[in-house]
Amino acid sequence: MSKRLYIQEVATRDGFQIEPNFVATEDKIALVNRLSHTGLAKIEVTSFTSPKAIPNLRDAEEVMRSIDRVAGVEYTVLVPNVKGCERALSCQVDEINLVMSASDTHGLANLRMTPQQSLAQFREIIEVARGSKVFINASLSTTFGCPFEGAVAETRVHELIQRLTDIGVQGITLCDTTGMADPAQVERISREALQRWPQTVFTLHFHNTRGMGLANAIAALNAGVDRFDASLGGLGGCPYAPGASGNICTEDLVHMFQRMGFDTGVDLDALLQAAASLPELLGHDVPGAILKAGKADRRYPKPKWMDAAS
Amino acid sequence: MSKRLYIQEVATRDGFQIEPNFVATEDKIALVNRLSHTGLAKIEVTSFTSPKAIPNLRDAEEVMRSIDRVAGVEYTVLVPNVKGCERALSCQVDEINLVMSASDTHGLANLRMTPQQSLAQFREIIEVARGSKVFINASLSTTFGCPFEGAVAETRVHELIQRLTDIGVQGITLCDTTGMADPAQVERISREALQRWPQTVFTLHFHNTRGMGLANAIAALNAGVDRFDASLGGLGGCPYAPGASGNICTEDLVHMFQRMGFDTGVDLDALLQAAASLPELLGHDVPGAILKAGKADRRYPKPKWMDAAS
Repeated sequence: MSKRLYIQEVATRDGFQIEPNFVATEDKIALVNRLSHTGLAKIEVTSFTSPKAIPNLRDAEEVMRSIDRVAGVEYTVLVPNVKGCERALSCQVDEINLVMSASDTHGLANLRMTPQQSLAQFREIIEVARGSKVFINASLSTTFGCPFEGAVAETRVHELIQRLTDIGVQGITLCDTTGMADPAQVERISREALQRWPQTVFTLHFHNTRGMGLANAIAALNAGVDRFDASLGGLGGCPYAPGASGNICTEDLVHMFQRMGFDTGVDLDALLQAAASLPELLGHDVPGAILKAGKADRRYPKPKWMDAAS
Repeated sequence: MSKRLYIQEVATRDGFQIEPNFVATEDKIALVNRLSHTGLAKIEVTSFTSPKAIPNLRDAEEVMRSIDRVAGVEYTVLVPNVKGCERALSCQVDEINLVMSASDTHGLANLRMTPQQSLAQFREIIEVARGSKVFINASLSTTFGCPFEGAVAETRVHELIQRLTDIGVQGITLCDTTGMADPAQVERISREALQRWPQTVFTLHFHNTRGMGLANAIAALNAGVDRFDASLGGLGGCPYAPGASGNICTEDLVHMFQRMGFDTGVDLDALLQAAASLPELLGHDVPGAILKAGKADRRYPKPKWMDAAS
């Protein structure tokens, strides 16, 4: 039960990109630096998308160039195209994270590309990245279902994983983009992925939109998965479900795994302190449960009348 | 995967007892009647505690005598003592649910009784109930941890289960009273209970205080558990963690199990309609996720520009 699990933080990218207000560059840098010292395995720092597309992350270069690089932490960024890859490489990232959808409609709606078009573009990006030592990860959105099309055939997911590995992708993140996955599906798809592509580094990326986020993490764990994306405070969200929870919450995930006896490498108290800074930084409450309830080892004083009676 | 799971609703007891305002008797009756037609296996209707102790449930007799009895649904009530048992029996309940704590301090704080004192009282209650055909269930609070003492020894839990079965208890609900349980602990304790006491009907009762509610349900399911308490809308709560979530949410639990392919017997749409009535009935929002996000099979229209472009 002391298996090592790897926790990958996505709040400053997946969370901040949909915040109503721009988070100041210096605050982003300070948060990444703070997170770098909590024992997280990887931090998705920012996204090298067009500043027009995601104005909240228009400071990608400055953030990526200004953060401290802490030994043992991998710094990854989202890269949507060749230009984004060149920008990312100029900042000495450890990893680039390419994004595509498993479903046509979500791909067209979100990226204006079908999976086939995404794969063609990935080839160009990988060609550009080849000379560097950067690790190449691809995130497969809507692996567990598409908000427009519904179920996504598992054969399609398998085919896309094969195509991604064929073109040189080293890591694949299976994403439950809008919180449609259930634990049985997660365990089945995760198990098959780990068995069929043992050379690929798989990460599971869950949202808590329908309350199943940590249940899905348990299902992935049961299948042998050891890498999980999560977002500090549970930041991030689903544009299709206003008011619903977003990404699974890093401190809630770490808390659960630690209670179960797993080694996450994370200093949960330091992580909770970082999470506690979010409401003031962002101007709103965050969904995380442990911030509100405290850790499970929290002790409460006995009712006062019990002391009086004894 | 078509295994039958039994969903037991506790909102009108565990939820309503801590509501800030009294829910009108006719509204309680109407809600129980509505829930009776959703396919739930059991409904914990009310509690025969002293009206002084829980004024919100001071109408226990009237509610219990006025509800429809739908075939296939078991109607249970919480019974704290001999007097409560006599009141419950006079209302022709199907089951009485006795409550004790696994930990001394929680028992004293919550019930003013140690586990030993509770067991002695249970014997008296069971003596009174013996002539009737009522099913005798006992809920073991703080099975997975005590908010005052911390960890509760599993040997103590086992000993208490043995004592309960010795005195004639037929069903035992293992309760994570304040949301301290983690999935590894739940799977271990559930598996051992099912194996060592195969004649006892076990129910698992989780709270979502620390976000692990559905993850714990998955762990219990993996151990072979097929009966779960849950609360419509996620009503209920933890008096020790203001703002934290309460019981696991019935519609979220049913939604997850149905997505996984299990037969819960529940009409999820009917359940969701009942849950949707809660905010107006109670005057506040409820924690349930599916009410906000919709079911995972919900389809969203494509962005309008996609139609224009095609």
